[in-house]
Amino acid sequence: MKIRDLEIVDLRFPTSRTNAGTDAMHPDPDYSAAYVILKTDANVEGHGFTFTIGRGNEICAEAIRTFRHLVVGRSLEEIVAEPAAFWRSLACETQLRWLGPEKGVIHLAMAAIVNAVWDLSGKRERKPVWKLLSDMTPREIVRCIDFRYITDALTPDEAIDLLERQEKSKPQREALLLREGYPAYTTSAGWMGYSDDYIRRLCREALAEGWTHFKVKVGAAPDDDARRLRVVREEIGNQHRLMIDANQRWDVNEAIERVRALAGFHPWWIEEPTSPDDVLGHAAIRAAVKPVGVATGEHAQNRIIFKQLLQARAIDFCQIDSCRLGGVNENLAVILMAAKFGVPLCPHAGGVGLCELVQHLSMFDYVAVSGRMDDRVTEFVDHLHEHFVDPVVMRRGRYIAPSAAGYSSTIKAESRVEYRYPDGPVWSDLAQTATGAPMKIT
Amino acid sequence: MKIRDLEIVDLRFPTSRTNAGTDAMHPDPDYSAAYVILKTDANVEGHGFTFTIGRGNEICAEAIRTFRHLVVGRSLEEIVAEPAAFWRSLACETQLRWLGPEKGVIHLAMAAIVNAVWDLSGKRERKPVWKLLSDMTPREIVRCIDFRYITDALTPDEAIDLLERQEKSKPQREALLLREGYPAYTTSAGWMGYSDDYIRRLCREALAEGWTHFKVKVGAAPDDDARRLRVVREEIGNQHRLMIDANQRWDVNEAIERVRALAGFHPWWIEEPTSPDDVLGHAAIRAAVKPVGVATGEHAQNRIIFKQLLQARAIDFCQIDSCRLGGVNENLAVILMAAKFGVPLCPHAGGVGLCELVQHLSMFDYVAVSGRMDDRVTEFVDHLHEHFVDPVVMRRGRYIAPSAAGYSSTIKAESRVEYRYPDGPVWSDLAQTATGAPMKIT
Repeated sequence: MKIRDLEIVDLRFPTSRTNAGTDAMHPDPDYSAAYVILKTDANVEGHGFTFTIGRGNEICAEAIRTFRHLVVGRSLEEIVAEPAAFWRSLACETQLRWLGPEKGVIHLAMAAIVNAVWDLSGKRERKPVWKLLSDMTPREIVRCIDFRYITDALTPDEAIDLLERQEKSKPQREALLLREGYPAYTTSAGWMGYSDDYIRRLCREALAEGWTHFKVKVGAAPDDDARRLRVVREEIGNQHRLMIDANQRWDVNEAIERVRALAGFHPWWIEEPTSPDDVLGHAAIRAAVKPVGVATGEHAQNRIIFKQLLQARAIDFCQIDSCRLGGVNENLAVILMAAKFGVPLCPHAGGVGLCELVQHLSMFDYVAVSGRMDDRVTEFVDHLHEHFVDPVVMRRGRYIAPSAAGYSSTIKAESRVEYRYPDGPVWSDLAQTATGAPMKIT
Repeated sequence: MKIRDLEIVDLRFPTSRTNAGTDAMHPDPDYSAAYVILKTDANVEGHGFTFTIGRGNEICAEAIRTFRHLVVGRSLEEIVAEPAAFWRSLACETQLRWLGPEKGVIHLAMAAIVNAVWDLSGKRERKPVWKLLSDMTPREIVRCIDFRYITDALTPDEAIDLLERQEKSKPQREALLLREGYPAYTTSAGWMGYSDDYIRRLCREALAEGWTHFKVKVGAAPDDDARRLRVVREEIGNQHRLMIDANQRWDVNEAIERVRALAGFHPWWIEEPTSPDDVLGHAAIRAAVKPVGVATGEHAQNRIIFKQLLQARAIDFCQIDSCRLGGVNENLAVILMAAKFGVPLCPHAGGVGLCELVQHLSMFDYVAVSGRMDDRVTEFVDHLHEHFVDPVVMRRGRYIAPSAAGYSSTIKAESRVEYRYPDGPVWSDLAQTATGAPMKIT
């Protein structure tokens, strides 16, 4: 199966008009996807994307275009035979790597391509990606990973050992997963821009739906944070878990002070207390705010940052992201390192399509790597799923394992037309609307 | 003075045809600049750029375009009144920051703009940037810096203290600088792609010109590295300093082994032994390879990585880069942190125009911050200076202080036409040349 063409679409959803997704650092996100379609000489397409929050999505699209020569003309069989080599050919392109290396725009861009390749692989094997991964042998998994820069924390042999220990019991866990789904938490009630009354209503609805873990944005004025947490605790009681997320708002000492001031609300974790680049800062915060746990990862640029967060004992929860890291392959590296260091995987999701993708990685972790889901939850946000051909299916606060082949990454053809930026009908209509006028998103 | 327009030029020099600039990770660099011209309502332009090595320069150009709305229409007086606020308005643009934050393409792009603003400032004050900075009061310098995420290592008050200690003696140092210039080292002899004979010839020429510090690329096969170092030591003797540069080629344990194997050649430092993101890795390497020093920074993405390199005692030499960090302002933050931690500044340069820019920062460090130049050297590479209106002036291995107003960042108008990619005459001629044919660059 040969990749004959690569189509790129700049897709944006005008979510900033509803205050959904607002936090201390990102008051106006328009959830967006720099979207890739791999066209093949068979009757199958691979769909993938990277996630952004609006402006700059065109830069990622431009970066994807720059990788084109490394993708078009290759066969899927050749890529699957040497998956780490394919991955490295993108991550270490001799001139492009200067723009990273392995971080920021070019890494986001390669994630879109790598995700599309996994979608194609899943479709060819007629398996959802979580199942495709779970059925691989330890050696096949390890062959997907570029171990450059992480061998001081995890060698290929150690990775094989880790995976072999779980080999025999995979079928039981797969059966349990198919029966019960995978645990999730909701962020939908706690956006920064929501009023207290609206938060109360959303908490009640979420409780009624069976949710047990709730995340709330913090990082506003101290009194506001406390008031919002009080509102949520009043609604959910003490038997449910509450997590707080500062979205990088604080400096290190400020984070320590602010988290201590909120400790009375018993948060399970503080997420992104400071810069995602600050490994030593996270370690200092973690030591100072115990028993509140520290979580980060949605902005951790690559496996090398995760390696250090684990080595420095800086995090209690490892929040991989399906698009920030270089697609499935690099996520496998981080999942294995987290397992070795005994840190539970609690992936970042939300935005557009991040839930669709990352559920596969959590499920693979459960079936084939950590073997556990008792102490872990995957983020869930109830936005924009209606645009997907195979949207996530939730039941009583759990992700139900996808059954369709591929990576659940395909956005409906009509949505790809409607939300194309800047010329799709949604955006040309908005351009005609009076500036600043609020708009109801369906 | 109002900024009325922002012009962007994609400039590329086909340096890969000559093996200049080749190292273990970058075998074929085409030195490039994503170039910005700020047009004002006065008779002055601000010129700035970010540096790349070819493919992807168009991505940086696209990213610069995305910042346009934050620059055009502002007055220089307004920017200079609140320089840190201007800087943060770029670094924390609410949607663009998702693509970093503060790293990779968007950070490189904002560096180009920030550098152009400093060029404009220097021209308005009729001072070269090193002198503009050196004449500022401690409070004025501190007002240029965004201290977000670094206050656990350096507070504004500590920075003022540091600068005040040097205030009185600035005139003596400025006089010495003007008389003697600033020490440099040469990388021109040691590129990976050069033959042994060519290296010998370049070493002899460099010795004759008065150079005392020589850097050589390593990270090839172990025997090749040893042979090349032997060649250089034979030529330069033991009285001169030899530095080695692996350009991120190794994993942590491999770096330790490989540097120990070369210790007999007494390198002053090993540069970029591993991933630039690996703070803990650099600390481990440093502990293991003493007395060889560890140097890094040309790929250190922002002040937060430098902060940690300093906090973890991971480096002996701090290699700031004028374009990798977010322009002059963020470099000021790192220069002050390095001074506080007692680590000498030895900036990265080379490429196209990096020498022109970074010399100003080294000179400012000497006059106003560290007060020393006995233990520090700034990189020098003898490429492409002929394209600059105010090229660096070297004398006996030292940078002579620039006297022209601005940041020495202006590329000649004719070079901007000739090397514009892809439609300038140099590139359209190359497109007509048979593929792979070697070409003599003037």
